[in-house]
Amino acid sequence: MIEETEIPLGRFIFERLGQLKVETIFGVPGDFNLSLLDHVDEVDGLRWAGNANELNAAYAADGYARVKGLACLITTFGVGELSAVNGIAGSFAEHVPVVHIVGVPSTKATEKKLLLHHTLGDGRFNVFKRISKEISLRAITIEDIKTAPDEFDSIVRDAYINKRPVYIALPSNFVEMPVKSSLLEKKIDLSLPPNDIESETEVLQTITALTSEAKNPIILVDACALRHEVKNVVAKLADVTQFPVFATPMGKSGISEDHSRFGGIYVGVLSKPDVKEAVESADLVLSVGGLLSDFNTGSFSYHYSTKNVVEFHSDYTKVRSAIYPGVQMQELLEKLIECIPAFLGSYKPAKLAQSPQDYKQLKSPSDEALNQEWLWKRISTFLRPDDIVVSETGTSAFGIIQTHFPGKVIGISQVLYGSIGFATGCAAGASFAAEELDPNRRVILFTGEGSLQLTVQAISDCCRWKLNPYLFVLNNNGYTIEKLIHGPKKQYNNIQPWDHSKILELFSTNHLYENIRISTIGEAETIFNSETFNTPDKIRMIEIMLPEFDAPQNLVQQAKISEQINAS
Amino acid sequence: MIEETEIPLGRFIFERLGQLKVETIFGVPGDFNLSLLDHVDEVDGLRWAGNANELNAAYAADGYARVKGLACLITTFGVGELSAVNGIAGSFAEHVPVVHIVGVPSTKATEKKLLLHHTLGDGRFNVFKRISKEISLRAITIEDIKTAPDEFDSIVRDAYINKRPVYIALPSNFVEMPVKSSLLEKKIDLSLPPNDIESETEVLQTITALTSEAKNPIILVDACALRHEVKNVVAKLADVTQFPVFATPMGKSGISEDHSRFGGIYVGVLSKPDVKEAVESADLVLSVGGLLSDFNTGSFSYHYSTKNVVEFHSDYTKVRSAIYPGVQMQELLEKLIECIPAFLGSYKPAKLAQSPQDYKQLKSPSDEALNQEWLWKRISTFLRPDDIVVSETGTSAFGIIQTHFPGKVIGISQVLYGSIGFATGCAAGASFAAEELDPNRRVILFTGEGSLQLTVQAISDCCRWKLNPYLFVLNNNGYTIEKLIHGPKKQYNNIQPWDHSKILELFSTNHLYENIRISTIGEAETIFNSETFNTPDKIRMIEIMLPEFDAPQNLVQQAKISEQINAS
Repeated sequence: MIEETEIPLGRFIFERLGQLKVETIFGVPGDFNLSLLDHVDEVDGLRWAGNANELNAAYAADGYARVKGLACLITTFGVGELSAVNGIAGSFAEHVPVVHIVGVPSTKATEKKLLLHHTLGDGRFNVFKRISKEISLRAITIEDIKTAPDEFDSIVRDAYINKRPVYIALPSNFVEMPVKSSLLEKKIDLSLPPNDIESETEVLQTITALTSEAKNPIILVDACALRHEVKNVVAKLADVTQFPVFATPMGKSGISEDHSRFGGIYVGVLSKPDVKEAVESADLVLSVGGLLSDFNTGSFSYHYSTKNVVEFHSDYTKVRSAIYPGVQMQELLEKLIECIPAFLGSYKPAKLAQSPQDYKQLKSPSDEALNQEWLWKRISTFLRPDDIVVSETGTSAFGIIQTHFPGKVIGISQVLYGSIGFATGCAAGASFAAEELDPNRRVILFTGEGSLQLTVQAISDCCRWKLNPYLFVLNNNGYTIEKLIHGPKKQYNNIQPWDHSKILELFSTNHLYENIRISTIGEAETIFNSETFNTPDKIRMIEIMLPEFDAPQNLVQQAKISEQINAS
Repeated sequence: MIEETEIPLGRFIFERLGQLKVETIFGVPGDFNLSLLDHVDEVDGLRWAGNANELNAAYAADGYARVKGLACLITTFGVGELSAVNGIAGSFAEHVPVVHIVGVPSTKATEKKLLLHHTLGDGRFNVFKRISKEISLRAITIEDIKTAPDEFDSIVRDAYINKRPVYIALPSNFVEMPVKSSLLEKKIDLSLPPNDIESETEVLQTITALTSEAKNPIILVDACALRHEVKNVVAKLADVTQFPVFATPMGKSGISEDHSRFGGIYVGVLSKPDVKEAVESADLVLSVGGLLSDFNTGSFSYHYSTKNVVEFHSDYTKVRSAIYPGVQMQELLEKLIECIPAFLGSYKPAKLAQSPQDYKQLKSPSDEALNQEWLWKRISTFLRPDDIVVSETGTSAFGIIQTHFPGKVIGISQVLYGSIGFATGCAAGASFAAEELDPNRRVILFTGEGSLQLTVQAISDCCRWKLNPYLFVLNNNGYTIEKLIHGPKKQYNNIQPWDHSKILELFSTNHLYENIRISTIGEAETIFNSETFNTPDKIRMIEIMLPEFDAPQNLVQQAKISEQINAS
């Protein structure tokens, strides 16, 4: 019985998500979650995306969360949730907050260990939760309606604060149970716990002592600066200090590349020589949100000549060898900005490396065949300051490092986890988010024709909602990144050739679309210079024909290193 | 150093699989498995399927194993293997032997806990194996080249004997290490352990005592009779006893439906009335390979009036309440066939139910719109005795129960695990197997247009190898099975409409294909009666237009029961 001041738990869940600006729910229906889905429409401004499959839904939720700060994915028991596991694992690895709600059999059916469909047939109902626990910050089952709202609030808060996926198993019998609607009046507290004043003060003193001595300090921005939303603070820190700011591949777009102190992308030995020199000769490194994976560091070829490294993290700070647990970067950086101007000693703003501006010198003989070297530079001036750019693991993720991002471009690459197929699903999710923020905002996907095959039906999800991403498909006849690592001529690195012009014909039955295929620099210039093309009023697939072994130079180097590591 | 009498472990693995008639290896390349894949081509008759994604590869391996008895799937660490988890879980639930080999980082990289790409970024390299362990019979990591061949043989044997998936993590540095080639001379022993003579004798005495008293005995064939390959023995048992034989949905095709003693499909309350009466009034039930899931039993509405039930399983036998561990059905049934003729007492062969022959009375007013009732019966005479028929969870899996399977048709439905999308991938895998057994053998898929969307790129895998399945797509405008369970008018049960005629245009760039769309009984008759259509010389997609809420009657009943269970 629902009383006037009560609402069903299912409704409560979606009202809460709506309060956190989650406006799209991703997922696939299944018989154990159908009654929950009934409540999506009851919340103003909320929509059910209805993805074509669960892996795509998980990737989409990841992309949405990277743009809007939080996402929700709903799947069904066993068959649904397990198909999403790889997507959630990626969110875990890359610090992306996704609330994964799984509709599971009713408490009664579970207690009786009924041999229901979607089980493993052996009565082990806990297996699926155990699996998700391995790749989630927390995993809970709703077992008591009295505590359910608090449990939900608490786990959503944990996801948000820690930027990690969480898992909620919701037995079907709980969906319609009543909870007090007044609970919604008090919003979920998403504030970070304050830093311990004493520790923080000590840290600030140590840092400012270092900056007052430094002749050649730099700021290095990495993945968690984006995820934990300290981009604005980093920009301010650069403003007040005039230190040069570099970004890692995963930190790209953590500082605007139009910022006057942006110095380039640092990837260890794979960096441009002048960028490498600038970073490695620094006498103080302020590292913000560092995440050191092989592809993010030129296979661990990071090398600072100084021991004066300060690491700002979301839950601790490290100064040289000292670790300060619980001193989190958001608050610390804000305080640092206030006090640092007095501690800049004799620092004179260093001259910046020239190579990040390379993209401005671009020759365009129009009848020449397209190549990666030209392409990635040229994209720089195609981009607009508020674009969202998603690049796939492989040639695209390496290539995009050469591209200059104007203004507030958001760049997304799954550099650490590197699951191919991710980018297409992610771009779909980012397209939902972009549309909610501003219908004219563009989402631009760069993927390979091999990676595209894994998750192609994510494009159908865009068509369903009349979203208009630009889908650039780099067609280089197979898995080029794998060919560079091992087996360049092997059949296993080839794929079935598709007629890409049929993809939008297949999916976009109710929506405007355009197919374009370019092979020369002239053809590329024509579209990039066209105002019509630049307006995101339809979904577009642009197939870019490239030579099979043409790859960004940094990828060629990385591939060689990877093969050595694998064989050793 | 490889000596003359040695081969690399990678080669050993594929030679072994080849000996077990595994001729296709399914999977997706990834940098941690590339060096292993080098060895596929070295073994005569072996091919690398090169699937479009890992979930499809896992489904394909499942389908292949159901036809040929064993399959192999190769994925890469983390990102690859996790995408396959749902497919492997299905194989586990449904007793299908798939050897899943995962290329993982080298021992050295793992020991150093390098923050490699494809990891979770937290040094927990064991997570992925722990996840697979939950859904596999066994999970091992190759850690010592001396024991590697034995370990491989032993785990493959376990998969084969127990009909369950197994997991092998193969660090990349082991692939080229040498093992003795003479090991290949002795084949892997796949024989079952013999039954304990004393227990078996006791069981035989008890069973024959029951048969000599029985007036109205029946045989009931279920899933594990197919998986553990006792089909021929069951047919012989029916021959010598003349007991009527019934099959469950998962046991369908466990006895030829042309067998003179075939009595129909038993699904509890969802059975046809005369079949229900025949099974439930029996005074002795010989149940072979039973697997009691909800969809396999009409939501547990099994009801025998007798307590005289003998359950034959792959690893035990149960007679009334007594369990005999280790008395396995293969050997037991063979002995039973020898001795049972003397113990048939006064049994007189019962008259069979009439309704399983319903399909012979089919009215065909040619201008009438197609409907499920007509369709599933009509398929009976389209089928050939050696066809392989794959039906998707949903209307197809329920509908196919009404279809008569001639001769030795192999029927595949994932009735217990019920992951939508499975059937398309499974049909692709079955197509590889069918081609290897006989290039003219037909594989026939029945799926819904909703389920098709999850794994559509499996069709590309067929095109790549010029395989010619019949792809029947039942288009009823959304997830009809879900609509019947809950939310018939809800948006979440609808899908993006696709132009299905573009699917083969997209994928089949190097292979003959045909698109057909039928809406009336007359159009269906035309294709079913056409000799050209009946010849599997190209890949065909047949879109069958059906009313939105038209569903097999047994599904309508099942859906009502499911909704009650979920809400309670």
